[in-house]
Amino acid sequence: MTTIENILNRRSIRRYTDTKIDTDTMHTLLTCAMAGPSCVNARDWSFIVVDNKDLLRKLADCNGRPASMLPDAAAAVIVCGDLSRAFKKAREYWIIDGSIAAQNIILAANELGIGSVWLGTYPQMERVNNIRHLFALPEDIVPHSIIALGYPDEKGNGDKLLYEENRVHFNRW
Amino acid sequence: MTTIENILNRRSIRRYTDTKIDTDTMHTLLTCAMAGPSCVNARDWSFIVVDNKDLLRKLADCNGRPASMLPDAAAAVIVCGDLSRAFKKAREYWIIDGSIAAQNIILAANELGIGSVWLGTYPQMERVNNIRHLFALPEDIVPHSIIALGYPDEKGNGDKLLYEENRVHFNRW
Repeated sequence: MTTIENILNRRSIRRYTDTKIDTDTMHTLLTCAMAGPSCVNARDWSFIVVDNKDLLRKLADCNGRPASMLPDAAAAVIVCGDLSRAFKKAREYWIIDGSIAAQNIILAANELGIGSVWLGTYPQMERVNNIRHLFALPEDIVPHSIIALGYPDEKGNGDKLLYEENRVHFNRW
Repeated sequence: MTTIENILNRRSIRRYTDTKIDTDTMHTLLTCAMAGPSCVNARDWSFIVVDNKDLLRKLADCNGRPASMLPDAAAAVIVCGDLSRAFKKAREYWIIDGSIAAQNIILAANELGIGSVWLGTYPQMERVNNIRHLFALPEDIVPHSIIALGYPDEKGNGDKLLYEENRVHFNRW
């Protein structure tokens, strides 16, 4: 599977088999997360891997209705920003750097046959604060997104809208 | 090249040959940009492709010293948020959605032998406003990042720090 095929064919997967994700595979996903660019190479993120069922249930409760599949996932990776490492002149780059890490996880997972769905947390501050509380996070650590992961038990949606000509402008708006 | 090899081996490329990026290739990069997930599938982005040399010089002036290679790039894609399409309950998801689009461009480009460097624009508002002015953008359109693109005339930095064990937590902080 080429990267371009991966990007174009990836679908959000919300139903999973009971198969676990092994330690080496999770290590690969996290290595990919940490291989993306970050603002001034600040690497301003941290990751919480959750595979405890009780904790997945609590995490689902933290993140609203769209996270209801979490207890059935093999694992979740909570991508967090680390504001203590963020670019001091413009800390909000942490949001971009966390997004890059999360997208790398999703694409690497898809190549390995692991389905995923991106669950938005930041900037919905109730969700952010619920997760902060659940894990008693240090003040500088901000939950960004949750990536639910598992071997697929569905195909995901079929056709996906791709290129839209009216979204592209050449040399002028 | 697998996706994982792509993610792990990608380097920021700031020196380019004179070779242009053809129309079909640019279409592929933009299709990948638009294939990422977005919050509630809002697809809240637009893209400005710049390959006019004079405009690349002006764009470099807009985006500070780190953008100084832009006049030598074959092209740049300005990833913009479209706030009119953003999730109404939490518009700031546009920052994440734009990041996903930009990372897809970078990975697709790397697979096609095209080098790139991600130039941060948002949240540095002077840069944002400079670009808004240069292109007379509508109010809802916010410059997010510039991806400079070109066939590589350098290898990029060698070793890259990848997995850091102290950034990963299992089932608790």
